[in-house]
Amino acid sequence: MVKRIGILLSGRGSNFEALADAVADGRIPNAEIAVVISNREGAPGIEKARARGIEALVIPSKGKERETYDREVVAALRERGVDLVCLAGFMRLLSPYFVNEYRTRILNIHPSLLPAFPGLEAQRQALEYGVKYSGCTVHFVDEHLDAGPIIRQAVVEVRDDDTPETLAARILREEHRIYAEAVRIVLEGRYRIEGRRVFITQEG
Amino acid sequence: MVKRIGILLSGRGSNFEALADAVADGRIPNAEIAVVISNREGAPGIEKARARGIEALVIPSKGKERETYDREVVAALRERGVDLVCLAGFMRLLSPYFVNEYRTRILNIHPSLLPAFPGLEAQRQALEYGVKYSGCTVHFVDEHLDAGPIIRQAVVEVRDDDTPETLAARILREEHRIYAEAVRIVLEGRYRIEGRRVFITQEG
Repeated sequence: MVKRIGILLSGRGSNFEALADAVADGRIPNAEIAVVISNREGAPGIEKARARGIEALVIPSKGKERETYDREVVAALRERGVDLVCLAGFMRLLSPYFVNEYRTRILNIHPSLLPAFPGLEAQRQALEYGVKYSGCTVHFVDEHLDAGPIIRQAVVEVRDDDTPETLAARILREEHRIYAEAVRIVLEGRYRIEGRRVFITQEG
Repeated sequence: MVKRIGILLSGRGSNFEALADAVADGRIPNAEIAVVISNREGAPGIEKARARGIEALVIPSKGKERETYDREVVAALRERGVDLVCLAGFMRLLSPYFVNEYRTRILNIHPSLLPAFPGLEAQRQALEYGVKYSGCTVHFVDEHLDAGPIIRQAVVEVRDDDTPETLAARILREEHRIYAEAVRIVLEGRYRIEGRRVFITQEG
């Protein structure tokens, strides 16, 4: 049966596009992107979804209590039979309600080697800290910021002449690769979680 | 002129031995290890130093105020004309006094990709967190725990079947390599610091 992916975003949605490409070219088989939801009017990701013929909704979050908002979003995802929720630059914490409704079926990608540099501007944080390696992390989402069990990471060397922009660009290429890999693993159920550790089974 | 290295340790001193080997085989040229100081009686590193014909002192730290202790150690280092202090499993924070006396001339190695997993049992912390990559870090020492500007890092993949011991063993091999590289860079003055970033100049 075809698995249905829901995407939540707030901005340009570059990781949404990477997942849509991976679905289209078979790197994420037996799946489709059922809906893209933005919490912001005018997020460029919305137009990109419509251009691909994917349903896109704006459900504005402004002024709403976290759980009130999350109930609206979960209802929209349920109506569309979404199996897996992928955050793609969604600039909100999820409520315990949302996390429980889709437990171990919500993924996020973050542009650092977590637990280093959670939160905003992770690439700038890494540069300013002076690390020699950074990267990106796909993890299950819980109610804490950038905190759930890690499915995949990729390492990117920091260069002396990097700016936040050049480092972010090299990390982004790795984000697109590992996010698609992680989505496939989770949709196919090829993992088990022990404590915080995620073990991949029957590596594809 | 031959540069004089002082080593501080509390235990087995495996990184001391790696530095002594690197001095002996020319990977750290124009340098000698002038003295090894342990804050603990019976640290195996002390016997290893003596077996190599290197002066080794025990200056017990137990029951002493931090700065009182550090003044004894700095006096011993000064008497021996030490240019660079290398911590090799030295289980104490340094006082601001010590850090100021040897500013940017104290190095430490830590078995994680800092700023992730500072403190004790970094390899176990990494495994339990569930990261897919860990590694090690050589950094300048300040008065905070595992916190100064980073000179070198190395990445080590975490395997599904790793225990803290197997992961620590693979990281240790990288520690030995990058610690010698970093000591050479610092002794030769081939770096500059901007903010927290360390840039290596004229890569050897």
